[in-house]
Amino acid sequence: MRKNFGAKPYLYPMPVLIIGTYDENGVPNAMNAAWGGICGYKEIIIDLSEHKTTKNIRLNEAFTVSVADAAHALEADYVGIVSGNDVPDKLEKIGLHTTNSEFVNAPIIDELPITLECKLIKFTEEGVVGEIMNVSVDEKVLDENGSVDPMKLEAISFDPFNNAYLKVAEKVGNAFSDGNKLK
Amino acid sequence: MRKNFGAKPYLYPMPVLIIGTYDENGVPNAMNAAWGGICGYKEIIIDLSEHKTTKNIRLNEAFTVSVADAAHALEADYVGIVSGNDVPDKLEKIGLHTTNSEFVNAPIIDELPITLECKLIKFTEEGVVGEIMNVSVDEKVLDENGSVDPMKLEAISFDPFNNAYLKVAEKVGNAFSDGNKLK
Repeated sequence: MRKNFGAKPYLYPMPVLIIGTYDENGVPNAMNAAWGGICGYKEIIIDLSEHKTTKNIRLNEAFTVSVADAAHALEADYVGIVSGNDVPDKLEKIGLHTTNSEFVNAPIIDELPITLECKLIKFTEEGVVGEIMNVSVDEKVLDENGSVDPMKLEAISFDPFNNAYLKVAEKVGNAFSDGNKLK
Repeated sequence: MRKNFGAKPYLYPMPVLIIGTYDENGVPNAMNAAWGGICGYKEIIIDLSEHKTTKNIRLNEAFTVSVADAAHALEADYVGIVSGNDVPDKLEKIGLHTTNSEFVNAPIIDELPITLECKLIKFTEEGVVGEIMNVSVDEKVLDENGSVDPMKLEAISFDPFNNAYLKVAEKVGNAFSDGNKLK
């Protein structure tokens, strides 16, 4: 038997995306967004209502998307609760540091291991569409082959049924490969 | 130090979305898509290149999005590798069963616990946009309060760096709540 939850945005897993921008004074800001995803080989879409972040993206035509990890679940949640309009230096306040992206005019949050550095393409009804110019990864989460080690990264995802953050780590299969066993 | 991976669609975690449709003969089909996400309170976007699924969505103006789980990682991978053009009865072939959605003209895959039942809104440059008409959940993954239990569900996500499937389960925090500790 199935239970109907109605018309809800209950995708699973939802990413926990930290959107980084500069304001008009060059102060780095960040907010937490779960509604977004890849929408082309080098494109990402983020659904944002009107926020300081939206204003900043229009201003700089750039943003970063960092992946929240278990080590910074508190910080990731904080930047989703507190607006940069109320606390302009909110990143500094919670001990997060930033470095300017080499590729776009937006801040990389040093403490978050994976960052997509994006140039604004356009605003659409569905959200802000950006071109991914580069993906940078902190070496501390790389394995001996230079790829991301999920167990070092410990990314989190958002569970919309329970408003919970869940850890993404343990490998259970190989994509584009295991399915061949069923042929 | 950060390593640059270049312009790649390396979001993390990526969902593993199984798109269900009917073909012109009413035969259920499914494919695996990782590029997509929520883009509005009741809207979902899936980036699809030209597939049997795209044709089917145009035909029925409907599709379902089921969440792949660890118990069906093999089946989820198989429907991503094998096209319905080559194996029209591919779901039957791997032992998956379907039930017609009560809300849209698209099949629910009985074995996958969470399904978003969607009506086509439009095709855009960024992907297929659907309106979520209902989310149905198999009772076997519900907890005693009637919500989804992530440990019973064991959803999987796609790791684009390693082409791996990773399990999403262990809770590490409360959203819209834990961040208050940093205020």
